[in-house]
Amino acid sequence: MFSVTVRDHMMVAHSLRGEVFGPAQRLHGATYAVEATFRRAELDSDGIVVDIGRAGEALRAVLAELDYRNLDDEPSLAGLNTTTEALARLIADRLAERLREGALGDAARKLDGLTVTLHESPVASASYERAL
Amino acid sequence: MFSVTVRDHMMVAHSLRGEVFGPAQRLHGATYAVEATFRRAELDSDGIVVDIGRAGEALRAVLAELDYRNLDDEPSLAGLNTTTEALARLIADRLAERLREGALGDAARKLDGLTVTLHESPVASASYERAL
Amino acid sequence: MFSVTVRDHMMVAHSLRGEVFGPAQRLHGATYAVEATFRRAELDSDGIVVDIGRAGEALRAVLAELDYRNLDDEPSLAGLNTTTEALARLIADRLAERLREGALGDAARKLDGLTVTLHESPVASASYERAL
Amino acid sequence: MFSVTVRDHMMVAHSLRGEVFGPAQRLHGATYAVEATFRRAELDSDGIVVDIGRAGEALRAVLAELDYRNLDDEPSLAGLNTTTEALARLIADRLAERLREGALGDAARKLDGLTVTLHESPVASASYERAL
Amino acid sequence: MFSVTVRDHMMVAHSLRGEVFGPAQRLHGATYAVEATFRRAELDSDGIVVDIGRAGEALRAVLAELDYRNLDDEPSLAGLNTTTEALARLIADRLAERLREGALGDAARKLDGLTVTLHESPVASASYERAL
Amino acid sequence: MFSVTVRDHMMVAHSLRGEVFGPAQRLHGATYAVEATFRRAELDSDGIVVDIGRAGEALRAVLAELDYRNLDDEPSLAGLNTTTEALARLIADRLAERLREGALGDAARKLDGLTVTLHESPVASASYERAL
Repeated sequence: MFSVTVRDHMMVAHSLRGEVFGPAQRLHGATYAVEATFRRAELDSDGIVVDIGRAGEALRAVLAELDYRNLDDEPSLAGLNTTTEALARLIADRLAERLREGALGDAARKLDGLTVTLHESPVASASYERAL
Repeated sequence: MFSVTVRDHMMVAHSLRGEVFGPAQRLHGATYAVEATFRRAELDSDGIVVDIGRAGEALRAVLAELDYRNLDDEPSLAGLNTTTEALARLIADRLAERLREGALGDAARKLDGLTVTLHESPVASASYERAL
Repeated sequence: MFSVTVRDHMMVAHSLRGEVFGPAQRLHGATYAVEATFRRAELDSDGIVVDIGRAGEALRAVLAELDYRNLDDEPSLAGLNTTTEALARLIADRLAERLREGALGDAARKLDGLTVTLHESPVASASYERAL
Repeated sequence: MFSVTVRDHMMVAHSLRGEVFGPAQRLHGATYAVEATFRRAELDSDGIVVDIGRAGEALRAVLAELDYRNLDDEPSLAGLNTTTEALARLIADRLAERLREGALGDAARKLDGLTVTLHESPVASASYERAL
Repeated sequence: MFSVTVRDHMMVAHSLRGEVFGPAQRLHGATYAVEATFRRAELDSDGIVVDIGRAGEALRAVLAELDYRNLDDEPSLAGLNTTTEALARLIADRLAERLREGALGDAARKLDGLTVTLHESPVASASYERAL
Repeated sequence: MFSVTVRDHMMVAHSLRGEVFGPAQRLHGATYAVEATFRRAELDSDGIVVDIGRAGEALRAVLAELDYRNLDDEPSLAGLNTTTEALARLIADRLAERLREGALGDAARKLDGLTVTLHESPVASASYERAL
């Protein structure tokens, strides 16, 4: 099994709903360092899983929809408790949608899976892994 | 599949038994940078795998039992060759026990697995992965 | 010249005033990974610059006043454009005040200087260096 | 499941064939920070997956065949498009061959698998995972 | 004293002239992770040293002239032994020239100095520091 | 001003004397990730501060005298409270002695200074800077 990982980041404000979150119920913020990993059983005829340049552009496009924003006010996130886990899934699902729409060309058709990891601080991160 | 990872560290002395260990048979030491990853198929009603704060506290509690100690003298480790691999399993098993005792609340009942990774230096690490 | 550095982090929301900031004029957020470096020409009788444990506690106390907050609403920051540079100075000055009040014991009297660095993302950071 | 990871690096020149690679079709270069992870269900009688020292030497030996070279001119790579993915597989396969030849002693016979990851820059990496 | 640091990278091929370089006399390559630090005694009226976004663009523009190239064939580097130290100076000087030409606006006029650091591998880096 | 930095690590046991050290008065251990930075105003005729390969070997030789040992039992450290600060100075002074003895060739005669930094954990480090 092969994989390719690209990295980027976004800087957002948000608050979390639920007593379990303690002080994170207050409006605060995070720099999320984001990794997206694309998996594939065999390489394509160019010898790659996906083009690293195009994969990075697809990740940037997904993050740009959230970057420098207060997630509590984003219409597309209405009703979502924007935990690190939930954001990992959201970004993975949006990346998967871009793949289906052709953002990585035909390569996307042979991808087996995708994992998105968000590092919220030097001591905590969350991941979501899905099939493609 | 979702996961959450928390990080902490401990600073211990120990020696290893066995010719394969060469100079590490002498009493020496290590800073182990420790990652604990909790896996779960679906998020709970708060939208999380486990509470990151409580997960960090559970990891701290397990590491506190070893931190700033000479492992060669620890009664609870008697007979154990404290390789990085063996310590990864020990910490994972002790974390699993705390989860069973409720350290992470009801969330622990839905966890699928746990991986503990110990980085002993910039160039070497070991992991142990288990079901929960 | 000797120095000791301790590290911690905080997660805040804020917005920046001024056209130069582009999208960062919107309410967004950041995880600031913070380093505080204490400098001293000679070690004390224990062979240290400052106690690393107490230095870490002093940094934590300063960051706790800002952590998990929207800096735009903090009365103590009223009128301050909370750029990374300005926050580095604020944290350094608050640390210096705690040193004067005895947070690091007598050691603080022999310190020559202090530098605070804030990493706002994997690609950007800012520092403020001052005498003590 | 247990694993041990060792890290090293190599500095090579190469060019890539295929329009998808854009500017990377020109002769350029990379520092590849390389991780090799060895997996095993149970520890051996010394309490290890493999000896970290010997694993590091085996990785060094494999990288030494490529280090400080122009991969476009390497006879053993003739016809190979030396993408990060292809190099990850090449290094994993060469490591596996050394294991079969006894580089890690009898331990190699009980290993279940091997993953090699190449970090080509702070924002991109590729991995290849295989059974042993 | 304040400073701001931005980070980027470039991937180049080159060879070094001189027996001291051993195997690095062969054509090989490197990913240089590059940090550029801008220093200034006082913040401007926006509360910054330089705009982090524009500083990152200026660094990108300088690196783009070298990225994905064989430095041995670059006309603008003819006669230069492209050691890590020499490249740090080259990049610092080219950045300084862009600052003089207005790449960072009026801010550049108040900058006191500039340091460029190139990380060539996980175990080696070189820096050049100059006044502005 | 130019500088070159090389990195390595050592794994030692030790205990610290003095109430200020709390639990670190017990025998424990540390992985010290060590950076040695060599400074020089002008490059030599090869375009370097020092040869990175030889600098790394000199650092390795100094660390090898301490690596995999219990510092409390080292005759050459008798009477020294082996704090991170004190070890940084010890390593810098031993490196300086090797430079005087020719470990880096004639280059050592033109070096202006040397800084040694020891990272004892992800959250704490200490440095010693000296002239040459």
